[in-house]
Amino acid sequence: MNYRMIAFAIGRILLTEAALLLLPAMTAALYQESPGPFLVPAMILVVVGLALGVKRPQRTAIFARDGFAVVALAWILLSAFGALPFVLSGDIPHYVDAFFETVSGFTTTGATILTEVESLSRGVLFWRSFTHWVGGMGVLVFVMAILPMTDGHGMHLMRAEVPGPIAGKLVSRMSDSAKILYGIYLAMTVFLIVLLVIEGMPLFDSCIHAFGTAGTGGFSNRNLSVGAYENPVFDITIGIFMLLFGINFNLYYFLLVRRFREVFRSEELRAYLLIVAAAVIVIAVDVSSYYGSFLTGLRHAFFQVSSILTTTGYATTDFNLWPTLSKGVLVVLMFIGGCAGSTAGGIKVSRVVIGLKSSLADMRKMLHPNAVTSVQFEEKPLTDRTIRGVQVYLSVYLVVFTVSFLLLCLEDFDLVTTFTALTTCINNVGPGLEVVGPMGNFSTFSDWGKILLSFDMLLGRLEIFPLLLLFAPSIWKRRVVRHSAE
Amino acid sequence: MNYRMIAFAIGRILLTEAALLLLPAMTAALYQESPGPFLVPAMILVVVGLALGVKRPQRTAIFARDGFAVVALAWILLSAFGALPFVLSGDIPHYVDAFFETVSGFTTTGATILTEVESLSRGVLFWRSFTHWVGGMGVLVFVMAILPMTDGHGMHLMRAEVPGPIAGKLVSRMSDSAKILYGIYLAMTVFLIVLLVIEGMPLFDSCIHAFGTAGTGGFSNRNLSVGAYENPVFDITIGIFMLLFGINFNLYYFLLVRRFREVFRSEELRAYLLIVAAAVIVIAVDVSSYYGSFLTGLRHAFFQVSSILTTTGYATTDFNLWPTLSKGVLVVLMFIGGCAGSTAGGIKVSRVVIGLKSSLADMRKMLHPNAVTSVQFEEKPLTDRTIRGVQVYLSVYLVVFTVSFLLLCLEDFDLVTTFTALTTCINNVGPGLEVVGPMGNFSTFSDWGKILLSFDMLLGRLEIFPLLLLFAPSIWKRRVVRHSAE
Repeated sequence: MNYRMIAFAIGRILLTEAALLLLPAMTAALYQESPGPFLVPAMILVVVGLALGVKRPQRTAIFARDGFAVVALAWILLSAFGALPFVLSGDIPHYVDAFFETVSGFTTTGATILTEVESLSRGVLFWRSFTHWVGGMGVLVFVMAILPMTDGHGMHLMRAEVPGPIAGKLVSRMSDSAKILYGIYLAMTVFLIVLLVIEGMPLFDSCIHAFGTAGTGGFSNRNLSVGAYENPVFDITIGIFMLLFGINFNLYYFLLVRRFREVFRSEELRAYLLIVAAAVIVIAVDVSSYYGSFLTGLRHAFFQVSSILTTTGYATTDFNLWPTLSKGVLVVLMFIGGCAGSTAGGIKVSRVVIGLKSSLADMRKMLHPNAVTSVQFEEKPLTDRTIRGVQVYLSVYLVVFTVSFLLLCLEDFDLVTTFTALTTCINNVGPGLEVVGPMGNFSTFSDWGKILLSFDMLLGRLEIFPLLLLFAPSIWKRRVVRHSAE
Repeated sequence: MNYRMIAFAIGRILLTEAALLLLPAMTAALYQESPGPFLVPAMILVVVGLALGVKRPQRTAIFARDGFAVVALAWILLSAFGALPFVLSGDIPHYVDAFFETVSGFTTTGATILTEVESLSRGVLFWRSFTHWVGGMGVLVFVMAILPMTDGHGMHLMRAEVPGPIAGKLVSRMSDSAKILYGIYLAMTVFLIVLLVIEGMPLFDSCIHAFGTAGTGGFSNRNLSVGAYENPVFDITIGIFMLLFGINFNLYYFLLVRRFREVFRSEELRAYLLIVAAAVIVIAVDVSSYYGSFLTGLRHAFFQVSSILTTTGYATTDFNLWPTLSKGVLVVLMFIGGCAGSTAGGIKVSRVVIGLKSSLADMRKMLHPNAVTSVQFEEKPLTDRTIRGVQVYLSVYLVVFTVSFLLLCLEDFDLVTTFTALTTCINNVGPGLEVVGPMGNFSTFSDWGKILLSFDMLLGRLEIFPLLLLFAPSIWKRRVVRHSAE
C-alpha cells in the first residue's frame, strides 16, 4: 500500500469538501441565517486535509487496492464531516441521525430520519440536497476534474467510484474525461433549474429539486415531496429529467461529438426504456381504478416508475396504498436501478442484461453442447472476465443483502418494512413500503439500525467491493515489493 | 431428438406409476374403502403406458436434451395422472386443486389446498403422502433401479433429476447406483416407521409421517401437523430424521463401504450442520420469551429449523407468530435448502458454499491481481465449468423467481404472503407466512395462481433447466445429424 499517496488523496478530497461547504454558508448568509454551522466544519476540514499531506509524495503510483481504500475511506470521512452542519445548526441534534442523513445524501439515497423538513433552515436544506449533487457524479471524479493528477492512477479511483460493470474512459486523459462528465452534468442541472423556474417553481425549490433529480437522490424541501406542488407540469418535467440522469453519461458525450449511431444502438439504453415502458403500462392499468382516471393513473405511474427505477425516490403519491402488483413492480425496479455510468443506483441495467444474455447462452449450450456461441453486448463480444465479474457481483450482493436483512430483522419491524428498508437503502432509492413508505421515514430505527443502513447505502453507492475489501486483512498487510512493478 | 426412445421411457414411467397406485388401493381395501379411485387411474396408465411403446426402440441413444425432455414431461404427466384419485374419490373434486396437491406431493413440497385433512379417506391420505416418498428420491431413479436400461444413457436422466451442482455415480453402472440409493432410502424409511411405532405413534400415522420425512415433503394426516401429538419424543425423532434425509445419500453409501474419511471431511455436511446450529441458537434465544422457557424454545427452534432447512415443512408450532428475526431466519433457510443428492429442495448447501468460496477467491484477486488462486471444494479443485454452472443456476433462479413473483402479485394478497408462498413453493418447502403460514393453506389462491405455483414447484424440484428448456424452440427442432455422433 502506498499510505502516503492514500493520505494525500484523502486530504485533497477533504479540502474539496471544505470548499463545497462555502456554498451552503453563502446560502445561509443570503437568507440571514448563521453561516457558522458550515464554516466551522470547513475550517476543521482544512486543518485535517492539510495535516494529511501538503505536498504530493514522490512515489505517486497507486494500484487497485489503494484505489479501493481511497474511495472507501474518502466516502466514510466525507459523510462523517458532512454531518457536522446538521448537528451544529441544531436541526438534527443527534449525531447518528445526522450521519445517516449525510450518508443518505452523498450516496444519493434520499432516505431521511426527519419527520418533517419544512421547518429546517435554508442553509441546511441546501447542504442536504447539495450532497446529492456532489455524490451523484462522484466526489473523486470531481477532485480529478479540478485537480491535476498523474494519469493512469486516476483510472483506479474512477473505476472504484463510477458505477457499472465496464469502466471506460471517454478520452485518453482521465482528468479530461472527468471534466467532460462534470461539464455535461453541470449543464443539465442548470438547464433543469432554469426550466423549473420558468414553469413557476420558486428558485430555491428549483435548486433543491434539480440537485435531487440530477444526483438521482430524492431529498425535497417539502414534506409531501414533489407531490406537494400538485402541479402536473412539475411532475412531468422532473419525471423526464430523472430518466435522463439515469442514462449513461457517455451517451451524452457521444451526442456532443455527433456519434449518434452509438447512442441509438445502445443495448443498455433500449433495455432501460423498455423496462420503463413496461412498468408504466402495467402500473397505469393497475392503479387507474384507484385514481378514477387512466390519465391520472398514467401520470402517477410514469413519475413513480421514473423515480424508483432511477433510484431517485421522489413521490407524487403514496404508492404504499397501491395494489400488490404495482408495489411488487416498484420493488423489482428498486433492484434493477438505472444505467451504468449514470448517477443512479441499483444493480444497473447493463448487469441485468449481461446476466440474462450469458445465462441464455449457457442454457443454449446445455441443449447443444457442441454449438459455438459468443455473447455480444453493445456490439462487442463479452469476455468471460466481464461475465464472471457480473456474476460475482450478483453473488456478493446477495450475500451482503442476506446478512444485512437478518441483522435488520433485530429491529423487529414487520417483514415488509424490514425488507424494503434494506432494499431502498442498499440500492440508494430512498422510500420503501409500510413504515418507510413515501410518506414515512427512518426515524423509528434504532441508532444501530441507522448505522447498519448507512453502511448498506455506502456499499450500494460504491458497488460493494471498495468498502467490503476495507475489511480484508490482506489489504493492509502487503506493503511489499510490487509497488513499482506495474 | 430421439422421439421413440423418449416415448418409450415415459411409457415405462407411467406403467411404474400404475404399479405404485396398487399400494393405496390395497390400503383403501384394508380400511374397507373403495379401491376404485386408484384402480381406474392405474388402468388408464397401463393403456397409455403401453400405447407409448411396448418394445424398446432399436436406437436407444439419448442425449442431454432428450434427458431433459423425458424428465420434464414425465413429471408433468405423473402429476396429471396422479391427481385423478383425489378427484375420483371426491375428496378433492376440483381438478386444478387435485393437480396442485399432486404436484406438491411429488415435488415433496407439502403445500396444500386442503383446509382440513383429518376427514379424508385413508387410501387418499396414503397416496397423498406416498407421492412424497416416490418424488423424494426421484421417479426416474426408481425406474432405473427396477428396469434394465442401457448404461450411459441413464446418466442424462439421473443428472436431470438428482439435485445438486455436481452429478456423480457411486459405482460404475448407473442402474446399480440407483439400486443402492433406493436401498438406503427404503431401509431408513422402514427404520423410521418402526421407531415411531415403538414410540407410540399409530402405524398408519407412522407411515404417513415417515413418507413425509423421508421425501422431505411435509404432508401430514393431522391438521396441526406433527404438533398435533404434543409429544416431544415424536418432535425430536422426526426432527433428527428430517436432518438425516437432508444429507447427501452418497455419504450413507460411503458409511456402508467404510469410507469414513469422506464423510467426516465433507465440506457440504459441515456447512449444513453449521447452518443448523447457528439457526437453532439464534431462534431459540429469540423465541424463548415467547414460550416462557428456553428448553421449550430450543425444542421448537430445532424442529422448525430442521423442517424448513430440509424443505420438509412439518410444524410443531405456528411460527407465523414468532418475532421478525426468527421469521427472517426461516425465510433465508427456505432458500438455502438441504444438501445436494438428498431428497431436500432449495438452492442446496453445496451451491451456496461454492458460490461463497468462488466469490471470495474473486475478491482476493481484486486486491492481488497477480496472485494465483484455486478454489477447492470437497478436497478437489473446482473447475471453472462448475463455478460457472452454479452462477448461471443462481442467475436463472433469480429471473424465474422475479417473473413468478410479479405474476403472483396479480392475486393481490399482501406482499409477505405473495413472497413466501412463492419462496415455499419454488424451494419445495410447504408452509410460508401469513395466509400460507403453517396453520394456513393455499385454498384461497385462484386456479391460475395454483397452476403458476404448481409450475414453480416443478421448476424447483427439477432444478429449473429440464422444465424451462422444454419451452426452448430449438429443443424440438433439431432432429438432425448428431444422434449417432457421440
